Amino acid sequence: MNLTTVKRVLIGEPFPSSREVHERLDKVRALAVFASDPISSNAYATEAIMHVLIVLGSGALSMTLPLAMAVAGLVLLVVFSYIQTIMHYPDGGGAYTVAKDNLGRLPSLLAAAALLTDYVLTVSVSTSAGVRAVTSAVPELFEYRLFIALFAIAVITWINLRGVRESGTIFAFPTYAFVGGVMVVIVIGLIRYLGLFGAEPLPVFRDVVPKQKDAVGFVYVWLLLRAFAGGCTALTGIEAISNGVQAFKPPESKNAAKTMVAMGFMAMSLFIGISFLATAMHLIPEEEESILSQMTRHVAGTSVLYYWVQTFTALILFLAANTGYQDFPRLSSFLAKDGFMPRWMQNRGDRLVYSMGILVLAGLSSLLVIIFQADEIAMLPLYALGVMLSFTLSQAGMSRLMQKVGTLKPGESMKTSVTTIHYEPNWHWKRRLNILGATVTGIVFIVLVATKFLEGAWIVALLIPLLVLLFDRIHRHYERVAAALSTSQMQESELVEVADVVIVPIADVHKGTLRALQYAKRLSRDVRAVSISTSPQMHQRIEERWKRFPKLTEGIRLVIIDYDYRDILNPLVEYIERVNHEEFPDQLITVVVPEFVTTELGGQFLHNQTATILRMRLRYMKDVVVISVPYLISEKDMPNGRRANGRK
Amino acid sequence: MNLTTVKRVLIGEPFPSSREVHERLDKVRALAVFASDPISSNAYATEAIMHVLIVLGSGALSMTLPLAMAVAGLVLLVVFSYIQTIMHYPDGGGAYTVAKDNLGRLPSLLAAAALLTDYVLTVSVSTSAGVRAVTSAVPELFEYRLFIALFAIAVITWINLRGVRESGTIFAFPTYAFVGGVMVVIVIGLIRYLGLFGAEPLPVFRDVVPKQKDAVGFVYVWLLLRAFAGGCTALTGIEAISNGVQAFKPPESKNAAKTMVAMGFMAMSLFIGISFLATAMHLIPEEEESILSQMTRHVAGTSVLYYWVQTFTALILFLAANTGYQDFPRLSSFLAKDGFMPRWMQNRGDRLVYSMGILVLAGLSSLLVIIFQADEIAMLPLYALGVMLSFTLSQAGMSRLMQKVGTLKPGESMKTSVTTIHYEPNWHWKRRLNILGATVTGIVFIVLVATKFLEGAWIVALLIPLLVLLFDRIHRHYERVAAALSTSQMQESELVEVADVVIVPIADVHKGTLRALQYAKRLSRDVRAVSISTSPQMHQRIEERWKRFPKLTEGIRLVIIDYDYRDILNPLVEYIERVNHEEFPDQLITVVVPEFVTTELGGQFLHNQTATILRMRLRYMKDVVVISVPYLISEKDMPNGRRANGRK
Repeated sequence: MNLTTVKRVLIGEPFPSSREVHERLDKVRALAVFASDPISSNAYATEAIMHVLIVLGSGALSMTLPLAMAVAGLVLLVVFSYIQTIMHYPDGGGAYTVAKDNLGRLPSLLAAAALLTDYVLTVSVSTSAGVRAVTSAVPELFEYRLFIALFAIAVITWINLRGVRESGTIFAFPTYAFVGGVMVVIVIGLIRYLGLFGAEPLPVFRDVVPKQKDAVGFVYVWLLLRAFAGGCTALTGIEAISNGVQAFKPPESKNAAKTMVAMGFMAMSLFIGISFLATAMHLIPEEEESILSQMTRHVAGTSVLYYWVQTFTALILFLAANTGYQDFPRLSSFLAKDGFMPRWMQNRGDRLVYSMGILVLAGLSSLLVIIFQADEIAMLPLYALGVMLSFTLSQAGMSRLMQKVGTLKPGESMKTSVTTIHYEPNWHWKRRLNILGATVTGIVFIVLVATKFLEGAWIVALLIPLLVLLFDRIHRHYERVAAALSTSQMQESELVEVADVVIVPIADVHKGTLRALQYAKRLSRDVRAVSISTSPQMHQRIEERWKRFPKLTEGIRLVIIDYDYRDILNPLVEYIERVNHEEFPDQLITVVVPEFVTTELGGQFLHNQTATILRMRLRYMKDVVVISVPYLISEKDMPNGRRANGRK
Repeated sequence: MNLTTVKRVLIGEPFPSSREVHERLDKVRALAVFASDPISSNAYATEAIMHVLIVLGSGALSMTLPLAMAVAGLVLLVVFSYIQTIMHYPDGGGAYTVAKDNLGRLPSLLAAAALLTDYVLTVSVSTSAGVRAVTSAVPELFEYRLFIALFAIAVITWINLRGVRESGTIFAFPTYAFVGGVMVVIVIGLIRYLGLFGAEPLPVFRDVVPKQKDAVGFVYVWLLLRAFAGGCTALTGIEAISNGVQAFKPPESKNAAKTMVAMGFMAMSLFIGISFLATAMHLIPEEEESILSQMTRHVAGTSVLYYWVQTFTALILFLAANTGYQDFPRLSSFLAKDGFMPRWMQNRGDRLVYSMGILVLAGLSSLLVIIFQADEIAMLPLYALGVMLSFTLSQAGMSRLMQKVGTLKPGESMKTSVTTIHYEPNWHWKRRLNILGATVTGIVFIVLVATKFLEGAWIVALLIPLLVLLFDRIHRHYERVAAALSTSQMQESELVEVADVVIVPIADVHKGTLRALQYAKRLSRDVRAVSISTSPQMHQRIEERWKRFPKLTEGIRLVIIDYDYRDILNPLVEYIERVNHEEFPDQLITVVVPEFVTTELGGQFLHNQTATILRMRLRYMKDVVVISVPYLISEKDMPNGRRANGRK
């Protein structure tokens, strides 16, 4: 079974390019597809707030709900700002596209770097949180969490390499099952809290003594800001719809906008519900059991409902990780197409997916999971910064676009580099909304960086500019190569001449070298066989063997260079350089390298790789053409050495 | 600073081949050079015996001395047997050579495999024991022992790569300082034991309760055998002199023989002295402190003498490790020369040493040290088996040689494949000594394997045959290749024909492909530019660009293959195969691959490696010559794309 077979079994038969189709989603399925990421944040967002507040003691946990509501307000602002984007970029308007169209290269690269960072984190955080949902229900698995997380990433990677399209159906069930399950828990919790229908009241737990008692003034505000920053992780994934407008059934923009509003409300009701109940019961964040699990257990007992919620929490988190596998390769391919990332990031694999992008994402997110030992709470300080920066840039770009709309008269249209805009009567209101959105998310971004800086945000703050720098360097490389290869300014007469000289390095006279010499003679009248001799015996042996083939060697100059060191490549390369620079400057010279190849497993390992190393060194000499004349020794040819000369 | 500079700084300037000289050693230095390995065994051999006996309680430790004397007797037998080898193989007669000359291929490979295994263990065991000597004196370093051991191996490797020859002087001092120091301790110990000169009597320690009380009959004998097997580690390194006869001043054989006797007596007096005192004081082997260290401390106190002995124990052990660096690469190069190991094992590096052998040894011994966590006591069960097997084979070979000597009449001589033998009057006595040696070491070998089998000897018992198998497979590979390449049966007319066809795969029309086409036109009248098109746009673009260079493309057939998948190499390779098999069967066809190369760091990483992968796939087609026409884009050429076409 060779590698190709293994690949076929794992990945499946290749798809022809013509088979690419775009599935269109109705709103119910689209909501499920796009909402899994933001809705799944509910598994850890409340916890992220409480995690900070707990240092002030249980009393401070009452601030959870107001902070959750502030986050919810922010979500609504972003949702309504993004509706503008959806309406004006019906072909898909991610932050990268909008920034490129309105703000220029640098902001667009910033947005791209920020988003790519966040997509990697989406996979790491969601997978780790999914594993926590599993281990909260089955504590015995806690010590294997790193292994489970890596396995989950591997499975998601494999599914994506097989190219399962975003088929709404498989997403729809877990998403709605999760939302439904948590909703039921929240409703039961509220009933018990309010004592309706004579329900048993909710348990209220003991208070924890604050670690930091005298938090007043600035310190208190700072802690609140940090807690708020923690809650902002709920905003990740909201922007995904704006990239995928084309996945909706027509009218695409309208359906996408409606879905976005529904998603915002759904995610935020869960968030506020969970935050409310967790505060009401004085729950304390613990490493072994998530807040959501604690809440469900105390509200509904370790019932079927509990396992339902835990199961679908894990599933929706893995689905959220899957959205990273849609977003990262797509954005990478955009960047690669524009020349900011390696070209091969836009190569489609056998199953028409961006295989390289998928593999890069899998590698990076696995690395993060290993570094952070699958602890998503430790990763959260790095998370949500990227998405917040991309909101800011996207909204700033939109306000610029709205300004352009403002210059149009009724009935007029205008083409930007990406989209077409028309006259709109109430453009200035929309523009104000975008400016507000950009300002608020900008401030939140600064808050996020500042409050989480020492906990890990510095990594992202450092990484994003570095990525931008890298994008720029890559772009410059491609520009230079294109200019160097371009034929637009070129005349045919400019082509370099080919010198009539062929050099054949030989170590010994055997069938392989004879074949190379014969080939060389066909190319040129000036063939030189060059042999580096490291001992008098070797010198003599080559001369003797040379004489045995008078017909073939006739007209070939034999150059034997005596050399008192063992590294025979140096004098060889020196000789070739001398011929190139002194005898035939500015012409192409030719080197014929006899190579023998064996098909035996590990056979190549038993020979000095002189030919390979020589080829590598000659690669960097710009006017040297290298000809490899192979001499294949396959196992069936070997027994008696007769059939090995190429005739059967 | 590039790699070559780093290499120069670390390894030094290369030596010319003509500079190789053979240093000749006088007996005093030669003893130091060759004795460091067997004499250093005293640092752990007594311990290895006591380690087994202790399970019977302190009472059984009194058996240490008789067992040590049995080992010493074995050493003397081996020494006198080996003197025959030295006298008959003045050019060096390691077990491999002697077995090859007298017993045939399989026994010689067995001996070689056994010795190579032991040489690797010499390095691991000696280094680890050296580190134990250090940590016995400075217990704070105990937890860093693995790191120290690996560092020591790295330093020894570095020294050997620099090619410090076996300069007797640096060996002489630590060896004699160690022997002298331990001798003084033994003499003081004996004086105190006998109560001479009114010396304070030696301390005698409490007894340990036996773990295994009722060891009688077979179990008792078995334990004694195991303890004896432990002591046999003292025999390692004895054979080294037989390989290095040429390192002595003339008369080589005589001097070598005398040195061997001196070495045997010196090593065994230390061994018996240490064993006697350790038993007299009822010392108990401990993990943290070696027996030698305990003995020295109790006899001489923590005095200057104590640190002297510890220091030179460590030094002589590191020197013993160094002998592995002489033996392993030398034997490997013999095997490589005979075609039983990869050819590159006989390559001499810049400093005229067998660099590859040194590096392989360093890698293997480091691996062992890591696996056994630098605990030489745990490694000892693997040790000494190889050397005992090589003794057996070597002595068996010598007895066969003596039989040949017996057929000679006075004054007659006879040449074997390696050496020359003459008439000897008392050949049958010598032969009996060799037979006795072979028998005894053979029995001891079986005892070693049996008693240490479960503790780790099974690894060696498995490894040695596997190595022999590997040697054999390597040999067969080289034989086949030689037969396939051999020109001895070949007629010049047998050479394969070169077809008049050149295929140029092109992805686009740029300066690089134009250069390749131009080169191809020079080679043949039948040039075919083959392009795989994955979309109608691509098809059209290539046709358009093609027409822009009418002069160059005149006479070249443009073949555009439309392909509905992304893996463009498949149709390309298929096309080449079809041309090769259908149009020009049994002829060499030519493929010209345009390649562009950038000198930018990481630049290559930004491009699809299509050309490289194509070359790799074509390598295994036996009648395809591949021509790489490079197009070098160096950074200075790039800015305006003008100077990049090869003309300056």
